[in-house]
Amino acid sequence: MHFSDRIKAMQTSPIRRLLPFSDEAKKAGKKVYHLNIGQPDIKTPDGYFEAVRSFKVDTVAYAASQGRDDLRDAIVEYYRAWDIPFERGDVYITNGGSEALWFAVMTICDPGDELLVPEPFYANYNAFAQSALARLVPIPTKAENGFHLPPAQVIEKMITPKTRAIWISNPGNPTGAVYTASELEAITALAKKHDIYIIADEVYREFTYDGEKFTSAGHMKDALDRVIMVDSVSKRFSACGARVGCVAIKNKEFMAQVLKLCQGRLCVSTLEQVGAAALYKTPKSYLEEVNREYKARRDVLYSALKGMDGVVCEEPKGAFYVMVKMPVDDAEKFIIWMLGNYDVNGETMMGAPGNGFYAPGAERGKDEMRLAYVLKKEDLVKAMNVLKGALAAYPGRVEAIKA
Amino acid sequence: MHFSDRIKAMQTSPIRRLLPFSDEAKKAGKKVYHLNIGQPDIKTPDGYFEAVRSFKVDTVAYAASQGRDDLRDAIVEYYRAWDIPFERGDVYITNGGSEALWFAVMTICDPGDELLVPEPFYANYNAFAQSALARLVPIPTKAENGFHLPPAQVIEKMITPKTRAIWISNPGNPTGAVYTASELEAITALAKKHDIYIIADEVYREFTYDGEKFTSAGHMKDALDRVIMVDSVSKRFSACGARVGCVAIKNKEFMAQVLKLCQGRLCVSTLEQVGAAALYKTPKSYLEEVNREYKARRDVLYSALKGMDGVVCEEPKGAFYVMVKMPVDDAEKFIIWMLGNYDVNGETMMGAPGNGFYAPGAERGKDEMRLAYVLKKEDLVKAMNVLKGALAAYPGRVEAIKA
Repeated sequence: MHFSDRIKAMQTSPIRRLLPFSDEAKKAGKKVYHLNIGQPDIKTPDGYFEAVRSFKVDTVAYAASQGRDDLRDAIVEYYRAWDIPFERGDVYITNGGSEALWFAVMTICDPGDELLVPEPFYANYNAFAQSALARLVPIPTKAENGFHLPPAQVIEKMITPKTRAIWISNPGNPTGAVYTASELEAITALAKKHDIYIIADEVYREFTYDGEKFTSAGHMKDALDRVIMVDSVSKRFSACGARVGCVAIKNKEFMAQVLKLCQGRLCVSTLEQVGAAALYKTPKSYLEEVNREYKARRDVLYSALKGMDGVVCEEPKGAFYVMVKMPVDDAEKFIIWMLGNYDVNGETMMGAPGNGFYAPGAERGKDEMRLAYVLKKEDLVKAMNVLKGALAAYPGRVEAIKA
Repeated sequence: MHFSDRIKAMQTSPIRRLLPFSDEAKKAGKKVYHLNIGQPDIKTPDGYFEAVRSFKVDTVAYAASQGRDDLRDAIVEYYRAWDIPFERGDVYITNGGSEALWFAVMTICDPGDELLVPEPFYANYNAFAQSALARLVPIPTKAENGFHLPPAQVIEKMITPKTRAIWISNPGNPTGAVYTASELEAITALAKKHDIYIIADEVYREFTYDGEKFTSAGHMKDALDRVIMVDSVSKRFSACGARVGCVAIKNKEFMAQVLKLCQGRLCVSTLEQVGAAALYKTPKSYLEEVNREYKARRDVLYSALKGMDGVVCEEPKGAFYVMVKMPVDDAEKFIIWMLGNYDVNGETMMGAPGNGFYAPGAERGKDEMRLAYVLKKEDLVKAMNVLKGALAAYPGRVEAIKA
């Protein structure tokens, strides 16, 4: 049977494709610490369950394609607290941040169009770009430099007549980088000069750890007609399974165009929108508490990694991921080996192979692994103990990190 | 700012784009009977609400990208009762039937590939095809002939090396046609001969009214590796807002390819899957009762339409739509005029302009309107009374139906 070239060229998710190996380990009676996926163990606020339990209608009807007004208004109020001036008409509800990203790409890209994206980047960006047959053009960033952006003139040289947007994840998945106000201003100036968009994936906005003030693309007030903001309740309120996000921009024509895609899939779950509206009413203390918890987890993870012979990584400043360079021949082989062959008292762990966070076909990141510090500290300590032992015992260990 | 050619060429939904006019009518104090959209007023089974209310976890986590096993198993059991032999591994859960259709198109089509679809067809098929830059090639069908398929040799002549599938809605939206076993066998033979797929949108499977046995594409047992089945809880259980559907096929390679798209959007709402699994446990008597109700509604609507001067339509045999030819210059103008200028005791009604159910750019269907008989009989009677009066009073009335 025939399959499209489009789908054949799409990679499987590096975050999920090794799950059969962790399933095998579990079948063999082992406990597996999942640091491969950004699935936090933090409690979802009670407001979600209360809203869901009190939802009673005769018929579970379609919502508006744009999303429920109560949720859109709750998000507008949330943005206001961040000094981001969106109004209801600027915000459409989506099936998670994922759909918002995909809609953004479809709205601005035809086949062959280019999207500049700091690399390494969230693996599923490949899937969204490939669906639209757009091309991700990686802006190289380096661990040694905290994965910060290169100077504007380096980025500018990569802009062509086919470039449609600069696409950032800030705070960064998988890098943990948090861009400075100057970096935001620099790419905004480029976007204006070359009349392109900024796709700003800010689903980790609350998760910065070292007291710096977070600068949002939504603060670039003279460019909000070209800032496509992407957001989600998944990480903010530890509600990944709710699948509620939004796309927002102060650009009426963009909203008119993207509405066609919203109408094509009819609407986002009515009940989940009710739950999400309640989530946005969560007291601020919840987010402060969560922030403290992730910071503590980061500290546990980072200090453990620093103590491992041959491992290289930079302290992440935001989100809840870290990219780790390891003294191994191939990170994917190593993870599979660890799941199958290494445990400490019946416990093992799992990361996501780093190569999947680079542009398709790249050899980069083959000795890297993304770890998500989404488990409680005791579990992270045990997982790092597994990792340390596994790295020492792995038959494919190499003596020195490749440059 | 730049927009993709892809999005600019996408039409707005004929089912939803006139909503601003019905909103205006409501603001002016009028009641509007919505026959424009397949949003039933039938009660959602209690099982949904019970399952949702008893859902309690600490963290609302991602589900598997393939969907929850309990829901997949419930769907497999449902199919078994229909003598459709899918197993768990053949079924992935999607965000409504819409996402299943879109995934099907993306998995088999590259830009310029062709999909044969009996016309008129569900308007959003345009959106899914256009997203993938695939081309819908209409197979003409006629009201006079109950919108049944033309002979196989007529369809065969339309197959080219770029044809990837024959795409049917059965029972048909917007036509109400129910294909016979011979029609299914004929297109299956074509699909096998030319090595193409059948996309079978059977979300209205339970809704046939005249005692005929329904033949599913899932009954074409020697071709199940090329039958892409699309399903949904939306209409079956009157739960349109739940956004839970599935894509199913007995073809491991297809499932491996489409999984990449499933992983790209991570998963379908965990809570809605819990609710949907409960829906599939609904006693059979619910569906029988609903079927009787829709049949009664069809009879009310059809007999009212037959009594209107200059109106032409055929009795629909399934689903809950009817395409109506009207003695008007332009159905869209007529609907807008009716919402703004015609009411009976402060009540008016709304249909969906027919042209949106034909291939983009076609002049066909300009004097047609799709009506959904999703409201209770008393409401349908009132809506038909509005329509009859509006057709008589409309300044753009034409004396004879165009050929």
